[in-house]
Amino acid sequence: MLLLRCCHRLTRACPFNTQRHRGAPALASYAFRLWSSSGSSGGEGQRSYLGASWKHALVGLVAGTGAVLAYSLHHHKAEQTETPLEKRSALPIFTQEDVTGHRTLEDGVWVTYKGGVYDITEFVAMHPGGDKILLAAGGALEPFWSLYAVHNQEHVLEILSEYKVGELSAEDLKKQQSVTTSDPYSSDPVRHPALRVNSLKPFNAEPPPEILSDSYITPSAIFFKRNHLPVPQVDPGSYRLYIEGLPGGVLALSLEDLKTKFPKHTVTATLQCAGNRRSEMNKVKQVKGLNWGIAAISNATWSGAKLRDVLLAAGYGPDVAKWARHVQFEGLDKDVSGTTYGASIPLNKAVSEEGDVLLAYEMNGEDLPADHGFPVRVVVPGTVGARNVKWLGKVTVSAEESGSHWQQNDYKGFSPGTDWDTVDFKSAPAIQELPIQSAITAPADGGVVERSSEEVTVKGYAWSGGGREVVRVDVSLDGGKTWQVAQLKDGENEAPPPPGRAWAWKLWEVQAPLPPEAQELEIICKAVDNSYNMQPDSVPPIWNLRGVLSNAWHRVKVKITEDESGE
Amino acid sequence: MLLLRCCHRLTRACPFNTQRHRGAPALASYAFRLWSSSGSSGGEGQRSYLGASWKHALVGLVAGTGAVLAYSLHHHKAEQTETPLEKRSALPIFTQEDVTGHRTLEDGVWVTYKGGVYDITEFVAMHPGGDKILLAAGGALEPFWSLYAVHNQEHVLEILSEYKVGELSAEDLKKQQSVTTSDPYSSDPVRHPALRVNSLKPFNAEPPPEILSDSYITPSAIFFKRNHLPVPQVDPGSYRLYIEGLPGGVLALSLEDLKTKFPKHTVTATLQCAGNRRSEMNKVKQVKGLNWGIAAISNATWSGAKLRDVLLAAGYGPDVAKWARHVQFEGLDKDVSGTTYGASIPLNKAVSEEGDVLLAYEMNGEDLPADHGFPVRVVVPGTVGARNVKWLGKVTVSAEESGSHWQQNDYKGFSPGTDWDTVDFKSAPAIQELPIQSAITAPADGGVVERSSEEVTVKGYAWSGGGREVVRVDVSLDGGKTWQVAQLKDGENEAPPPPGRAWAWKLWEVQAPLPPEAQELEIICKAVDNSYNMQPDSVPPIWNLRGVLSNAWHRVKVKITEDESGE
Repeated sequence: MLLLRCCHRLTRACPFNTQRHRGAPALASYAFRLWSSSGSSGGEGQRSYLGASWKHALVGLVAGTGAVLAYSLHHHKAEQTETPLEKRSALPIFTQEDVTGHRTLEDGVWVTYKGGVYDITEFVAMHPGGDKILLAAGGALEPFWSLYAVHNQEHVLEILSEYKVGELSAEDLKKQQSVTTSDPYSSDPVRHPALRVNSLKPFNAEPPPEILSDSYITPSAIFFKRNHLPVPQVDPGSYRLYIEGLPGGVLALSLEDLKTKFPKHTVTATLQCAGNRRSEMNKVKQVKGLNWGIAAISNATWSGAKLRDVLLAAGYGPDVAKWARHVQFEGLDKDVSGTTYGASIPLNKAVSEEGDVLLAYEMNGEDLPADHGFPVRVVVPGTVGARNVKWLGKVTVSAEESGSHWQQNDYKGFSPGTDWDTVDFKSAPAIQELPIQSAITAPADGGVVERSSEEVTVKGYAWSGGGREVVRVDVSLDGGKTWQVAQLKDGENEAPPPPGRAWAWKLWEVQAPLPPEAQELEIICKAVDNSYNMQPDSVPPIWNLRGVLSNAWHRVKVKITEDESGE
Repeated sequence: MLLLRCCHRLTRACPFNTQRHRGAPALASYAFRLWSSSGSSGGEGQRSYLGASWKHALVGLVAGTGAVLAYSLHHHKAEQTETPLEKRSALPIFTQEDVTGHRTLEDGVWVTYKGGVYDITEFVAMHPGGDKILLAAGGALEPFWSLYAVHNQEHVLEILSEYKVGELSAEDLKKQQSVTTSDPYSSDPVRHPALRVNSLKPFNAEPPPEILSDSYITPSAIFFKRNHLPVPQVDPGSYRLYIEGLPGGVLALSLEDLKTKFPKHTVTATLQCAGNRRSEMNKVKQVKGLNWGIAAISNATWSGAKLRDVLLAAGYGPDVAKWARHVQFEGLDKDVSGTTYGASIPLNKAVSEEGDVLLAYEMNGEDLPADHGFPVRVVVPGTVGARNVKWLGKVTVSAEESGSHWQQNDYKGFSPGTDWDTVDFKSAPAIQELPIQSAITAPADGGVVERSSEEVTVKGYAWSGGGREVVRVDVSLDGGKTWQVAQLKDGENEAPPPPGRAWAWKLWEVQAPLPPEAQELEIICKAVDNSYNMQPDSVPPIWNLRGVLSNAWHRVKVKITEDESGE
């Protein structure tokens, strides 16, 4: 009832043309509840409702650039309310020129959306995607929103409605509508139907866990996909990779150059998304980001030129080492403003002989698939997926880290006590090496084992960042009271990794008798790497507002069913 | 009563001259209880009492080479039983020649102790110190036991008594007693009275925690001491360091050579014993080893030649890199058999420019103190204390790890489910880099805070192995329900460490208001390094039979006392 009352108050106050989206109301309702608890009726008008707690709920709710809280679409039943649509309000009419005159925080930041004019100056600081919102200043929101599907939710429109100041003139609206806003995702490749999709645009999906542990090398088709932007179409013939920041000036390499002028190296390396297992953090308290299960991790064989070799050929040497500290990467995937995906890694990782950083053009013995960076991506073994930049366009040796959103204001870890009110992204290092990780791929949580089978087989994966080799996986069937050691499995024909260069995961397996008395098993796994790093026991103490680095013990519960054949 | 009954049965069966040691009976009683529960009366004689559980209790009880369960001396009140002493039994008389004829497992292994002759053939496999016991074969135990004070406990004598087969001839006994067995520890240096001694011989001690966090650089006098053997007396003038295993043959370097022929490097590095915080594991279930508190860790400034530079001068190069994998170190500290302390580190750590491994001759700006390796020790930053070999005599480049007891059969981590019955030391890697660690140095556990002070100051240290920098310490006052971020403190005048080379700890501090309702605080700390490794929540799941790698969250409880000044 509270929800309905709030919605009605909102719709009465803001005669805004909101479309109905069946998927989003659960999130919207959350925002409304917070709004209601913090707001008072009237006074300085509608914006006075934007109390502190509402603001933070909003920032927590709306996923950042390229991230979608799509899980809510599955988990919550829509609570629908009626918000009557009015095509045109009695607010003033503005021309496109009026709008274009408001493109800065000083002059005010105006945007248009479906014929409405909005002064979003005060919202800029609250935008979860950061000041990228300024790219739309003085123009239409539609091309940006078509890029970031996160905005296609009712509560986003409701937030926007708060800022409405007028209507765009009919003439300018007509002009705007004549501009084709094609779907930038229309040329994304076809994907494997087995993938569990977390977000369609940009495409983010993971394989079913039980398939994941079937093969040491993950087939490319089901290798987890984590795109931040539309997949770019790159012509391999005209492709050039630019190496910048070195004394000899810019070096431009064709795909052919990469393949023929540098030795081809092959590395088996596991990639893991920083958000793998985020869903377990969401169960503790809602976080911002894609609701990954346990399979935002996969293992492949990558081939290409060593980044070290290319940097040396491009002029890297001791003089550069004196001032350079980072190697930045830029992808060819970009948003409507032309901003490309970007990240960087420490220089010593990039130039070390033992770092094994590749400019890879093959995955599992074939050309890189479109979703994995065709024609060239960086593979940074032992390092979080986000730095393994796909569709690589530019490599820059620099004294500075990448200035990209993803390096500076995303993919960092914080204390469980840090919220969106107190977070200072400068206070935490960009995630590079990932901590020790493991998970149970079979049996599935909530599964069933028959008593007559007498034993249970538990399977999973384990991996650690920084080339640290997994040396042990402990498995418990009784919620952590007792532990047994799993059998670790390397790939067939895989030589043991040189010290400090264990880039690939280990699959593991335990076959254990069913405890005679147990009605249920609480199965837990925890791994140990060769620096004897251990996984933390539980999720709440490592919870963080971005839901990254979720590496607590993995737990699944399984029921034991008695035989039905009777005695 | 059970205890007394068992003791009486033992003493009746074994007329052995046991001396009374006030300190040891608690341990002995534990052994007896297990003995009692597993044994049956008679049959194949006394050795039938050596059932499996007794054997494992024994192995668990008796500390390994150079390790003493001295804590029991402090914690347990002696439960005294009378075991009447008999000087000479009615057993056969043997000559020293008879005894000397039994020096192998094939011929039988005999030893003498205070005039008794013992056939310990069956005990060799059970000896916690491994087959070092064979060094005494055919001879007297006394010189070995004077080296390893662990044997000076009643239950050890009682175990020995099980194996008595005869008496040494009076003539040979007289000869033996005329050999002076001087105390090999008599020339150990004088130590600081503030140190908390865990073992006198060999000397093992830690500073009080509240002193430890007073200074970023730990004064050498209170830097934790972990000796495995007596401190050797080394004449700096005749000292030679031998570098072996390289193409040019053996290189012998004087102390002067090290100081003048190689650049002097200075590194601030924290050293930590693998057993730091072992006492917390002992509270869960008894482990084997010194009962360290939280202060078997200290931080110092070390100066010396880079090992890399010395190896290059001695002939290390790409050809050697093809086959070499490890660099072994031997100390000049040795047992009566001449066996020296030894350890090794991976070659890539030793020869890397960024590994910062030193052949150190200075600690905190002065010559190395005797307890810390005078005149030269290895300092392997980021690596467990046990590999930082003191009183360094020899460096060997090799394809193999050190074969020493401490590298092969000690200082390794195992699953909590692994016991002395199932442990396979070959299955685990030698500890090198240590995992993330932190502890609270103030207030002390069981301490008191006055309500009137209104706030509490919590202090501690945090460190991680492998050059991984501590980036955050979370502190909870309410047993882990809520967390705040501590202020990290580097040393004054310390430059920020280069990436991957954060060898020194961080001290940290939190000042927080006292929660108004609380009667007690359960203070917890947990640290995070820049690979986002976290400490495990609790001790039982990381418990291991050797009690190493104890890095769960550190917890202290503090009472809040109301003002007594009245209202």
